[in-house]
Amino acid sequence: MSALVTLNNGLKMPLVGLGCWKIPNEVCADQIYNAIKLGYRLFDGATDYGNEVEFGQGIKRAIDENIVKRSDLFIVSKLWNSFHHPDHVKLNVMKNLKDLGLDYIDLYYIHFPIAFKFVPIEEKYPPGFYSGVQEQADGVIGTERVGLADTYHAMESLVDEGLIKSIGISNYNGGLVYDVLNYCRIKPVALQVEHHPYLTQSNLVEFCKKNHIQVVAYSSFGPQSYVELNSEVAIDTVPLFEHPIIKKIAESHGSGITTSQVLLRWATQQGVAIIPKSSKKERLLANLKIDQALTLTEEELKEINNLNKNLRFNNPWDWMNMKFPIFA
Amino acid sequence: MSALVTLNNGLKMPLVGLGCWKIPNEVCADQIYNAIKLGYRLFDGATDYGNEVEFGQGIKRAIDENIVKRSDLFIVSKLWNSFHHPDHVKLNVMKNLKDLGLDYIDLYYIHFPIAFKFVPIEEKYPPGFYSGVQEQADGVIGTERVGLADTYHAMESLVDEGLIKSIGISNYNGGLVYDVLNYCRIKPVALQVEHHPYLTQSNLVEFCKKNHIQVVAYSSFGPQSYVELNSEVAIDTVPLFEHPIIKKIAESHGSGITTSQVLLRWATQQGVAIIPKSSKKERLLANLKIDQALTLTEEELKEINNLNKNLRFNNPWDWMNMKFPIFA
Repeated sequence: MSALVTLNNGLKMPLVGLGCWKIPNEVCADQIYNAIKLGYRLFDGATDYGNEVEFGQGIKRAIDENIVKRSDLFIVSKLWNSFHHPDHVKLNVMKNLKDLGLDYIDLYYIHFPIAFKFVPIEEKYPPGFYSGVQEQADGVIGTERVGLADTYHAMESLVDEGLIKSIGISNYNGGLVYDVLNYCRIKPVALQVEHHPYLTQSNLVEFCKKNHIQVVAYSSFGPQSYVELNSEVAIDTVPLFEHPIIKKIAESHGSGITTSQVLLRWATQQGVAIIPKSSKKERLLANLKIDQALTLTEEELKEINNLNKNLRFNNPWDWMNMKFPIFA
Repeated sequence: MSALVTLNNGLKMPLVGLGCWKIPNEVCADQIYNAIKLGYRLFDGATDYGNEVEFGQGIKRAIDENIVKRSDLFIVSKLWNSFHHPDHVKLNVMKNLKDLGLDYIDLYYIHFPIAFKFVPIEEKYPPGFYSGVQEQADGVIGTERVGLADTYHAMESLVDEGLIKSIGISNYNGGLVYDVLNYCRIKPVALQVEHHPYLTQSNLVEFCKKNHIQVVAYSSFGPQSYVELNSEVAIDTVPLFEHPIIKKIAESHGSGITTSQVLLRWATQQGVAIIPKSSKKERLLANLKIDQALTLTEEELKEINNLNKNLRFNNPWDWMNMKFPIFA
């Protein structure tokens, strides 16, 4: 098991979890089950990842075999963009719960501060970018005019009803995080954002720490996940695994220490939670035990921080020419 | 007079105006009056600038002498941070109107997406950063939990009452602008932001254009205004007036063309409104007639755009260690 952090609502969350983005459906149940056996307790899923049925099967198998109890697990899901309207938020979470086979979710995020047009579950689920395809000939996605505060207040009702234990926000910039803190009734416990040495966001991390919002990093390895998606910027950027500074630091910590461990430890040493994905047992274990594997020096942390170039790989501005300005 | 742009509510606004930030009280009435005589019609004031009484005297003199009618002028003011609560928004605008000697304001901005603790007008006006000084020993300003949507809806009521003609937002990042468009009943007509070749914000400008929100640039000369305020970054940055690329372009347009004209024309040629300040008649005239003075080539515009380094000089993160994350 990894270290636990206490969230601002008193719940404890592991600092290391398994990210479920892009876990193929055919192996998802096994991977979740095996990860639980290895000691994983935090699983970061989402409506949009399209694998919650299998995710739930993995959980069920582990619980049925008495490997864990439900209360040992910290299960995460995320509201998709097309369910932002207060009338639709509960629809989404009920579907998540049904697919996962659970009666509550530990942490439920607003996935993006962007509202798409509603798509009925019977029509297409998960809907992805479907709203636009049917609506608009020019390929621009159908959006819906829903203010973020309205969506957030609907999330608060889910806490009241016991369907979710905590609220998270994801892909919010500093201005949006600041605003949530001013209009919320129930504070968000976590902010999940892209976070790696090319995008350190040190002010945002510092602000969240001060306000007791747990930062959860996604894409800890930077360009890696986006090369597969044919992102030009990602392809043109030196992979962090091969960056000379990261390599040098990994080597100086002795044989067996990998660049990926350096990248992950750089995050956890700042108190940032991580959710790396892997299908390999050795890698999964190494990630889970990252805090025991190495400790970076102040000097090394600084060297890595200096790699920052505010380089974001997941920017909705670039989504199929949709030009959402949420990071502009 | 400068060219006019038609705002999304049908009102026409000059593309060039006079910024009132840091116009000293003792010369303000004269400067406004003289600028009106020179042909200025747009004046960009704010509660926080502390010179609205004199600003109003300048307007009155010009109207009394039949140089202009009230309806020829486009008068701007801004809600200060300590009046964000819906109960206080109208207090602020009534004080602006009283000080200016007007019965309506053409465009009223939310100055910053940050709510300070309320300070009664009788206690200190304009209050500036006063909320914190009395409240908190550690120098952190007193803030108030008011969501931006609540402040915005109170601004909409001011339009309903006829006290202001249009709503503007200022220092909002792209995520906040996107959110306003989703929760507003009355669309903002303008976004006023720091904008110069070191901070081109091309995505934000493109988004606003597409959504018919007029971008108004402040600090068109970049570091200039902040050197006087002892900003270290500003002091360490090559002044745009002296930047070799800007100098080269100015020179290539013939004698008499200054680097400041190049900087202003770069903005207006993109459709961005400008509000440079000057106390010199020649400079005021040159600024007002910027569109007739020169036209930059596509190549030159691109060269200037390439100077962008996302360098912001007015960041509330840096305000006296207050660390507001609105641009994080």
